[in-house]
Amino acid sequence: MSKKVIIVGGVAGGASAATRLRRLDERAEIIIIERDEYISYANCGLPYYIGGTIQERSKLLVQTPEMMKKRSRIDVRVNSEAVKINTLDRIVTIQQNGQETYEENYDFLILSPGAKPIRPSLEGIDHPRILSLRNIPDTDRLKSMVDLDTVKTVTVIGGGFIGVEMAEVLTERGLKVTLVEAAPHILAPFDDDVVPIAEKEMQDHGIRLLLGDPVAKFGSADDNTVEITLKSGYTHQADLVVLAIGVAPDTAFLQDSGIKLGPKGHILVNEHLQTNCDGVYAVGDAIEISDWVTRIQTAVPLAGPANKQGRIAADHIAGLPSRYAGAQGTSILKIFGLTAASTGSNERTLRRLGIPYHAALVHPGSHAGYYPGAEPLTLKLIYDDQGKVLGAQGFGYDGVDKRIDVLATVIRLKGTIHDLTELELAYAPPYSSAKDPVNMAGFVAQNDLNGMSPLIHLTDIHDRDPESTMLLDVRSPQEYATGHISEAVNIPLDELRERIQELDSSKKLLVYCQVGFRGYTAVRILRQQGFDVANLTGGYKYYKAASFTPDKYV
Amino acid sequence: MSKKVIIVGGVAGGASAATRLRRLDERAEIIIIERDEYISYANCGLPYYIGGTIQERSKLLVQTPEMMKKRSRIDVRVNSEAVKINTLDRIVTIQQNGQETYEENYDFLILSPGAKPIRPSLEGIDHPRILSLRNIPDTDRLKSMVDLDTVKTVTVIGGGFIGVEMAEVLTERGLKVTLVEAAPHILAPFDDDVVPIAEKEMQDHGIRLLLGDPVAKFGSADDNTVEITLKSGYTHQADLVVLAIGVAPDTAFLQDSGIKLGPKGHILVNEHLQTNCDGVYAVGDAIEISDWVTRIQTAVPLAGPANKQGRIAADHIAGLPSRYAGAQGTSILKIFGLTAASTGSNERTLRRLGIPYHAALVHPGSHAGYYPGAEPLTLKLIYDDQGKVLGAQGFGYDGVDKRIDVLATVIRLKGTIHDLTELELAYAPPYSSAKDPVNMAGFVAQNDLNGMSPLIHLTDIHDRDPESTMLLDVRSPQEYATGHISEAVNIPLDELRERIQELDSSKKLLVYCQVGFRGYTAVRILRQQGFDVANLTGGYKYYKAASFTPDKYV
Repeated sequence: MSKKVIIVGGVAGGASAATRLRRLDERAEIIIIERDEYISYANCGLPYYIGGTIQERSKLLVQTPEMMKKRSRIDVRVNSEAVKINTLDRIVTIQQNGQETYEENYDFLILSPGAKPIRPSLEGIDHPRILSLRNIPDTDRLKSMVDLDTVKTVTVIGGGFIGVEMAEVLTERGLKVTLVEAAPHILAPFDDDVVPIAEKEMQDHGIRLLLGDPVAKFGSADDNTVEITLKSGYTHQADLVVLAIGVAPDTAFLQDSGIKLGPKGHILVNEHLQTNCDGVYAVGDAIEISDWVTRIQTAVPLAGPANKQGRIAADHIAGLPSRYAGAQGTSILKIFGLTAASTGSNERTLRRLGIPYHAALVHPGSHAGYYPGAEPLTLKLIYDDQGKVLGAQGFGYDGVDKRIDVLATVIRLKGTIHDLTELELAYAPPYSSAKDPVNMAGFVAQNDLNGMSPLIHLTDIHDRDPESTMLLDVRSPQEYATGHISEAVNIPLDELRERIQELDSSKKLLVYCQVGFRGYTAVRILRQQGFDVANLTGGYKYYKAASFTPDKYV
Repeated sequence: MSKKVIIVGGVAGGASAATRLRRLDERAEIIIIERDEYISYANCGLPYYIGGTIQERSKLLVQTPEMMKKRSRIDVRVNSEAVKINTLDRIVTIQQNGQETYEENYDFLILSPGAKPIRPSLEGIDHPRILSLRNIPDTDRLKSMVDLDTVKTVTVIGGGFIGVEMAEVLTERGLKVTLVEAAPHILAPFDDDVVPIAEKEMQDHGIRLLLGDPVAKFGSADDNTVEITLKSGYTHQADLVVLAIGVAPDTAFLQDSGIKLGPKGHILVNEHLQTNCDGVYAVGDAIEISDWVTRIQTAVPLAGPANKQGRIAADHIAGLPSRYAGAQGTSILKIFGLTAASTGSNERTLRRLGIPYHAALVHPGSHAGYYPGAEPLTLKLIYDDQGKVLGAQGFGYDGVDKRIDVLATVIRLKGTIHDLTELELAYAPPYSSAKDPVNMAGFVAQNDLNGMSPLIHLTDIHDRDPESTMLLDVRSPQEYATGHISEAVNIPLDELRERIQELDSSKKLLVYCQVGFRGYTAVRILRQQGFDVANLTGGYKYYKAASFTPDKYV
């Protein structure tokens, strides 16, 4: 007997599930219920269409209902909303075009309703020029607004991925953009010490960043201008507001279904992506999954996991034993020329969960320095006492995606910093160095863990006790003169052996150089002379980058 | 008591060993004996300096003897050749400037003599315009020759990495280049079915390829012209010949030392890189190491392994338990806009060793197709019956290095094709797709191994029995019309279900499409109807690319 499978939501996870299921089962009856007019569109491409990088709207439409019907015999019903699920009798109530409803029974149900932009109940939130971005109609609305000659200033509320991407693409279109973020920093997947690299890139391209200052209320001078008042009391106006403060699972329709939801409304599933109700699966942005690194329950509203989950739910319905093993939150974004990418856990998460960790920072070149076009990149590596890699964050103008993908792979395969030192990655001068940045990060972490060159961090510098510590800058006098950490003594590395008597052996020496490499050599020299000494990971470059704060309210 | 360590050879492995050892041991006496005038130069950059991409010669000199002395207190003796090793008494005989010799005793000896270009004893080989490339003096000679206005045509003998890179850089300088290769194809790390992609790139840029035709002899019209006669009898002239037919370990000086050498003269070492003689280590291009995938003894003359080995030998001398676990031969090169990269074992090697394997080919885009600038890439994945990844090869204009690095990491961590399907790689439209090319390769391989969509290969097409098989092209009639495999019947995928009666169920169906994806869907439809059917991996695009043969003797 053929199965009847209803899929609620025809984007990412839902579309993947449908086509996979058809390949597994020619006879299944497969119905996609999609609230909007469009299915399987290029969700992650929407900002780039608004910004003009993607010029043809048709390119956003990866699959049409007609294509799905023709090739995969899938019954796609757009403008159709699942309004109620009866999990006992296995019936979905569907509302078509917002009007009449009808019922459809199922053998299996895959829920892929996604997540919707959060719209807080702030004063003035209903101003017609406060828009969010989720789907194609939102995109059309935003684009038609941005296309107006009269729209010259935009305020983006929220410094997550969508907010930052929108700020970037609108700036590239020539608009004057302000980005407001309630937290002290944008882009929560990144730690506070490295994310200023991204913030500086944004300011350097003319975006004004108002950080650590939530919106208090909106007002309107007129229909075409929004007035934004922040909690600090600072007020400014914009011709358009893009609201991107985050997403919430779009699961209100499940409330009386008996399907278990998490504290924030996410659908709870097991490793086969089955809910607590027989025959009901769930995938994508609306579900809670297990974090690959910490094994904590979390939500990872990203396209990669959604697509993989769709495939796995289809497999399981077709009788294959596929499992979803958890998400590590690998993510990446382009900010003008800069790439920012991360994978696994960051310090903030690990601290919150009380999981001990270490962190190392390196600034190697994207490829051999003697070959033209090498760009410095910043790689932050987080690992535990046993050397297991827990997370990584990268910033730079070339080759960041590659290194984060390698580190994401190591995290997936439960590798260690020792593995990083042994990875044999592709080297020719246009592509890398004989010791790849990932190898280098491994070496630094290994030297840290085995005590050969213990690392210190910004907090160790900021919180140091001047009585018991001495800060030693081993760069050249020229470098020292152009900027150094206050109270640091300058002894260039190449003079260190001769001038060792200038050091106070009763104090702990905190060494730094520009990027960390000379500091490492200095530590090795000094440790062998019996000094208690450690090296600032990432060096002065890291210190300097971390201390960037945007020009506010200018 | 301080150790006295002599290092023979101051490039890559030797230089790495010296600086690492100093960081581990401030008191050790460290002497580098280097035959040439230069140490620690950018070996892999030499072709790019000759070609003009790297403009300043000084950039090739990564470290000078003075820098090494100043920072690391290493006694670097250039123009000094180790002519004899007495391993019983631990004495090296050193010849300075090709004249006087002296002796130096050691506690530890690290041999890093490298490999030298092979110079076959062919008639006419001593012509002054037949040059090889190994070191800085060779580079200077070649560059001064190439700089001559009268040098307009160059023949490169040998299609290995150096030969291909030289052919590329000299073409980019405006010279007319011919490349001669004795084997049927260039670039032995790649299989015959995919390496034509690189060969076509070279021909498209004006390089003439003479493959499968070894040099028989050289002659000279005059001092400024070399005549090259191939085994086929074909003769042509060139203003310059670059000889790059491979390298041999430069270990003649070890012959009476008691240090065990392999059949081709490579130094034999254990996992700590120790030779059979007490206190003697060896690293770099001159040693035999274990292949990571096959565990067969082999030589991998590449900079990455050399540098890592130097570090490990230094570690072990300093008392750390570091081991070298083997090399997987990850390599990459730029051929004009094309990147060609490989890691692990190829089909040729596995066939030779009698190791069973499977292969899958995919042609995904480098990033989301709807975002500008996506380039198709070709990824070949090799795996065993259990799904363990054995090797990979990639070609393309963007993002090939990233995917090969991810696959190199999987191979290092002993991952499987199932792991590939689960890797959570960084996705945003400018960087990748929600299902990365590496995920895609994993899916295809998984569908192959679990029988959902068995793959066939070019040999299955070429060797097929027309009586018992039927070749089915599921592309559109337009695609079919512009080129197809002879005897293939065309039924477009979207008509397949309706026209299934046109197929002969008594025959095995060999299906293909353009890149393999529609073929996969067709296989799924047909298998569920009871047909014996398999899909040509990589599709017609692969068939077409593999059948490229260069225009010879034009």
